[in-house]
Amino acid sequence: MKHIVVIGGGTGTFTVLSALKKYPVHLSAIVSMADDGGSTGILRDELGVLPPGDIRQCLVALSKSGQYMRKLMNYRFSDGGLKGHSFGNLFLSALEKTTGSFDKAVERASEVLRLEGQVIPATLDKVRLVAYLKNGKAIRGQSKIHNSNLRDLSKMILEPRARANPKAVAAIREANLVVIAPGDVYSSLVPNLLVSGIARAIARTKAKKVYVCNLMTKEGHTDGYAVADFVSLIESHVKSKLDYVIVNKEKPSPRILKRYAHEGEHMVKNGRFRIRKYILGNLINKKFPRPQKGDFVKRTLIRHDPDKLGQIIVGILRKIGE
Amino acid sequence: MKHIVVIGGGTGTFTVLSALKKYPVHLSAIVSMADDGGSTGILRDELGVLPPGDIRQCLVALSKSGQYMRKLMNYRFSDGGLKGHSFGNLFLSALEKTTGSFDKAVERASEVLRLEGQVIPATLDKVRLVAYLKNGKAIRGQSKIHNSNLRDLSKMILEPRARANPKAVAAIREANLVVIAPGDVYSSLVPNLLVSGIARAIARTKAKKVYVCNLMTKEGHTDGYAVADFVSLIESHVKSKLDYVIVNKEKPSPRILKRYAHEGEHMVKNGRFRIRKYILGNLINKKFPRPQKGDFVKRTLIRHDPDKLGQIIVGILRKIGE
Repeated sequence: MKHIVVIGGGTGTFTVLSALKKYPVHLSAIVSMADDGGSTGILRDELGVLPPGDIRQCLVALSKSGQYMRKLMNYRFSDGGLKGHSFGNLFLSALEKTTGSFDKAVERASEVLRLEGQVIPATLDKVRLVAYLKNGKAIRGQSKIHNSNLRDLSKMILEPRARANPKAVAAIREANLVVIAPGDVYSSLVPNLLVSGIARAIARTKAKKVYVCNLMTKEGHTDGYAVADFVSLIESHVKSKLDYVIVNKEKPSPRILKRYAHEGEHMVKNGRFRIRKYILGNLINKKFPRPQKGDFVKRTLIRHDPDKLGQIIVGILRKIGE
Repeated sequence: MKHIVVIGGGTGTFTVLSALKKYPVHLSAIVSMADDGGSTGILRDELGVLPPGDIRQCLVALSKSGQYMRKLMNYRFSDGGLKGHSFGNLFLSALEKTTGSFDKAVERASEVLRLEGQVIPATLDKVRLVAYLKNGKAIRGQSKIHNSNLRDLSKMILEPRARANPKAVAAIREANLVVIAPGDVYSSLVPNLLVSGIARAIARTKAKKVYVCNLMTKEGHTDGYAVADFVSLIESHVKSKLDYVIVNKEKPSPRILKRYAHEGEHMVKNGRFRIRKYILGNLINKKFPRPQKGDFVKRTLIRHDPDKLGQIIVGILRKIGE
């Protein structure tokens, strides 16, 4: 069975995993461990655990369990001292406490959730994302960085330096395809690539490297970015060339675009492409997703269509298999 | 397969279930729903859920899952906003929220924990235990009652009046043996029997009724009680005669008895018995159990030996089968 590794964190990874789940491929998700916001941030601070939030989302994406189990994992308590905590986060944190390691916790959770595939933390070290601006100022913490203006970004690091999870390195080495998922580049994707062993493994793998480019820019982070800008940002981190970039050419409705524009966010510009590397498609998800608790409304409006994304990625897999 | 129903709540039921688990019998545990202390009490107050604590203990007792799952269910968070909550309680409460009913929550939890047997809430109504004293004063709430002096007890009720869970009634009707577990009579056992459908079902069942008598008295609740006093208290609640009473005749060490005496608790006096109904044994658990978080130290010292208890109960089952 072909092996696809998906790298990211957050909703974009969830979409890519959902897109590929129905195909007969072996899936591994490598997930950033820099998250420190919301329920995850509280658990990190209060219990000293590793961040469960993004891991939980990927576990849910790959679970063969019934709908009730997925609903349970995403359930957020709405009252009292538990308010805001997602049950799945508590599940992973309690497993980390009782098994003695986050790695074992993810394994056990994978058994309970009857996982098809693997969810792998990028690192098992306790790290914090730090952004240095050109004026020397440091912004510490993924959730703070997420909400900060990075126009004058000088560099980003993980503190302390993170060692790659050997399982993640092995998965990348053995993969046929490495898919870099869409998502907030600086707060979700780059934290994976800052784990030096991960970037190195991507540079060295014989797997083809596919990047699913973001649909929209993010204010203060990727203003004015065209596809080529995202691509060179990622290539600079993985110190190697991407083989395929999946690009959307469909325009969302002007009404929705206006709502995004109001928040300083715009469609990623395509520019001109060499044909072989760039795969264009109408990728906007037309099924209006119901807003979920904790979602910004706009986030639910412009997303990749998992079916179309799945077809393209599996198409690439077929092509390279020939 | 013979069907044994165990009725109680708390540690005594856990012991009886553990005692019987290794025998080829079908086990059902009927559990009191009046608990309102500790983590359970907070969840009832803050989330409006039914009390998960005693149900969780019985689920753990009957789980076929590996040790790690039982450890997880009993894990108590020790820091921050989650402090004091057992993970299993959060599991049941989140399941109640996502499935929409406590009954379904227990079913789902039973699947996840690969239950051998059944755990059945005595009622699915939200009830509170109330003790009326002779001076007309009312003590409301199981945990308050647990810690109160009941010397002048006039009567106990559930508020509002609770309807029996039909599954509990069916289990009692179809049982070969109904075992009334040891434990705090007024705060753990009687709340089951106050559910009128439960007491009625016990009165009517063709099953033999076995009572595992407490080892020690409880200050302010059962001071000076002999076995006969426990028996008549229970018979008055179930409006029928017990068929067998399992009585301990072994004396714990004077050192341990002294610790209990310090808290006003003493060995239950045996008196004289008609031979057929009363089964005497050396029932003290000699394996010194490690104190668990939340246990009073003394509670861990004098307990029933599950192996000896299991042998006697299964012996009764054989005898009635002949």
